[in-house]
Amino acid sequence: MIKTDILIIGAGPTGLFAVFEAGLLKLKCHLIDALPQPGGQCSEIYPKKPIYDIPGFPEILAGDLTKNLLEQGKQFEPGFTLGERAETIEKQEDGSFIVTTNKGTQHHAPIVAIAGGLGSFEPRKPAIEGIADYEDKGVEYIIKDPEFYRDKKVVISGGGDSALDWSIFLADVASEVTLIHRRNEFRGALDSVEKVRELTLLNKINLITPAEVKELHGDGKIEAVSVVKDGETTKIETDHFIPLFGLSPKLGPIGNWGLEIEKNAIKVDNSLNYQTNIPGIFAIGDVNTYPEKLKLILCGFHEATLMCQAAYRIINPGKKYVLKYTTVSGIDGFDGTRKEAPKAVVQSIN
Amino acid sequence: MIKTDILIIGAGPTGLFAVFEAGLLKLKCHLIDALPQPGGQCSEIYPKKPIYDIPGFPEILAGDLTKNLLEQGKQFEPGFTLGERAETIEKQEDGSFIVTTNKGTQHHAPIVAIAGGLGSFEPRKPAIEGIADYEDKGVEYIIKDPEFYRDKKVVISGGGDSALDWSIFLADVASEVTLIHRRNEFRGALDSVEKVRELTLLNKINLITPAEVKELHGDGKIEAVSVVKDGETTKIETDHFIPLFGLSPKLGPIGNWGLEIEKNAIKVDNSLNYQTNIPGIFAIGDVNTYPEKLKLILCGFHEATLMCQAAYRIINPGKKYVLKYTTVSGIDGFDGTRKEAPKAVVQSIN
Ligand SMILES: Cc1cc2nc3c(=O)[nH]c(=O)nc-3n(C[C@H](O)[C@H](O)[C@H](O)COP(=O)(O)OP(=O)(O)OC[C@H]3O[C@@H](n4cnc5c(N)ncnc54)[C@H](O)[C@@H]3O)c2cc1C
Ligand SMILES: Cc1cc2nc3c(=O)[nH]c(=O)nc-3n(C[C@H](O)[C@H](O)[C@H](O)COP(=O)(O)OP(=O)(O)OC[C@H]3O[C@@H](n4cnc5c(N)ncnc54)[C@H](O)[C@@H]3O)c2cc1C
Repeated sequence: MIKTDILIIGAGPTGLFAVFEAGLLKLKCHLIDALPQPGGQCSEIYPKKPIYDIPGFPEILAGDLTKNLLEQGKQFEPGFTLGERAETIEKQEDGSFIVTTNKGTQHHAPIVAIAGGLGSFEPRKPAIEGIADYEDKGVEYIIKDPEFYRDKKVVISGGGDSALDWSIFLADVASEVTLIHRRNEFRGALDSVEKVRELTLLNKINLITPAEVKELHGDGKIEAVSVVKDGETTKIETDHFIPLFGLSPKLGPIGNWGLEIEKNAIKVDNSLNYQTNIPGIFAIGDVNTYPEKLKLILCGFHEATLMCQAAYRIINPGKKYVLKYTTVSGIDGFDGTRKEAPKAVVQSIN
Repeated sequence: MIKTDILIIGAGPTGLFAVFEAGLLKLKCHLIDALPQPGGQCSEIYPKKPIYDIPGFPEILAGDLTKNLLEQGKQFEPGFTLGERAETIEKQEDGSFIVTTNKGTQHHAPIVAIAGGLGSFEPRKPAIEGIADYEDKGVEYIIKDPEFYRDKKVVISGGGDSALDWSIFLADVASEVTLIHRRNEFRGALDSVEKVRELTLLNKINLITPAEVKELHGDGKIEAVSVVKDGETTKIETDHFIPLFGLSPKLGPIGNWGLEIEKNAIKVDNSLNYQTNIPGIFAIGDVNTYPEKLKLILCGFHEATLMCQAAYRIINPGKKYVLKYTTVSGIDGFDGTRKEAPKAVVQSIN
């Protein structure tokens, strides 16, 4: 059982900044995310695109924002449960919560902050008969660890950046990479498209377009796929079939936690501190809703900060907290580090 | 008469970011500040100190944050009335406002956003009899334009960074610089203290410590000051006497505008968009108060953003606004510039 002060569901920009604000109050955080990496939409959907409305950054790549937020919070040593979806929540007699993931990992905390964005990212699955039976038996929708494919035969399908980038990457890892897309045109960064073209000419990628995977074969695990191109069917032997058709967010299991839901988001009290209708559970960032809500990163930062103050008061009843400026007080990390502004010098001349 | 869409009182970080958010909504801003430069507390009190809790910056100097915010908003061409204090406000028949400064400059706008921080910074004045009579007649508490002192005799008094830095700077501009401080010890950056020591040895600064200016002389304008050191009084001829004893913020005239005030701050409706009790007047950043308010820069950013949305609806009644991501839509400056994320390329391989 993982224990922490604030259990954060969702490691997008809002959840990551909450780690920092909680740390200033000496509260420890643990984050659960369905994705294999932190950053939420910023790292999953548009890591290489610039954002122009993060205050103080005339321009910053979404991936760099994620990196900076991780760096900003790292001295507060957050824990991570990645690649797992928070599934159930049980309130304990003392008011604390146990949250369990789809893989059975259990987390225990007095405060739960849902920073789930548009929901947990779930892969779009192709409509191939019986594909569910092969999931985790050769069919994967997300690549977590490329080493898993070392010296294996893989068939990737899709026409976007993920399909292109992973085909390029696995060309050096897998024994055989086949990339299948139902059009000749790919939607991705120019240099990725050209790299795939180059690897195809070098026979390091077996490119089949316009084509579609129509059938899966194998006994207990994938052994081959049937590909249809120009009306003709070919059977390709493979150890893995990886459809990369993008991820779409779903509020999912959190929708059944007894929280007040409106327009697929969780209602919170924005006149105070973004608490939900269940005391001890807060919702911050894109996942919440209130009058005049804007689904912007900078709003999540503010909401996370006010949530942490409320969490502090619940965890430390009766203790008075006086806001201190980071510039004035410096930052004491849980890892023993200290950041501190240089003090003005008092120095005699005469 | 200066006309604008949103008249912002206070050019601190909150007011500066409001310029950017308003620009995204095609609203133009004009800012009034009592200080001669933008940045509010960040540039007046601690420009060279690091802030650790600006989201996405593990560390940023307060002065650099100001620079970045100016850069982020510059394509929306904000206007500035600097070195003047907003003094009075009059509601017009059509619901718009005219705001007049202490120097008589008039501003007309449908929306007023007060981003006045802890108040307008007013200089701390030494208790010297009759000093008020010499204000702007040789006595200045803030140096706006050092050229004003070219080839003049100046007496500066004070023991902090301002007194040190301006003495150093004016040593090359004025014909004579006298620095007077009531202690031998100065509170300032180490290199400033050493530079003053050096210039004193070179006779470019006439340093008198521990000493105090006790009397002012002159007919209609300053001609000399009396300095007391070790119980002895000396008369020093001078064209200017510049006491630099720091600035202290005062809510000041805004306190009489009919706004609901609580704990020296303006009450706003935080459940919506930070409007005050007077429709069309908003208060954002350190200057406002509401339940669970935190006087932090990152909170001012959020408040400014929600205020701009409300301003948009008041200025464009009935027009529907759909939030657009800057990453997706890019930014069209009022100066004709365009910022834009590179689009994904659709490119054929076969
Ligand atoms: C193309 C694009 C451009 C954008 N441009 C801008 C912009 O310019 N400016 C701006 O401010 N915003 C922009 N946004 C929006 C911005 O990305 C979001 O506001 C921001 O990511 C929200 O952060 P968050 O942390 O609240 O949620 P998210 O980033 O959505 O992160 C939520 C995380 O929670 C996880 N999660 C949810 N439920 C569960 C569960 N049950 N178990 C485990 N994990 C779960 C998800 O997997 C996800 O990783 C843009 C979005 C897109 C898609
Ligand atoms: C030493 C120090 C360290 C700090 N450290 C941190 C930190 O680490 N993190 C953090 O988030 N915050 C910190 N702060 C607080 C932070 O600086 C403020 O929250 C921030 O400056 C508020 O921004 P603002 O724009 O709302 O107001 P301000 O920065 O106060 O700006 C308000 C401006 O309005 C002007 N004004 C007011 N009334 C009038 C008028 N009638 N006419 C004309 N002009 C007027 C003033 O002259 C001023 O320039 C610190 C503050 C200090 C002093």
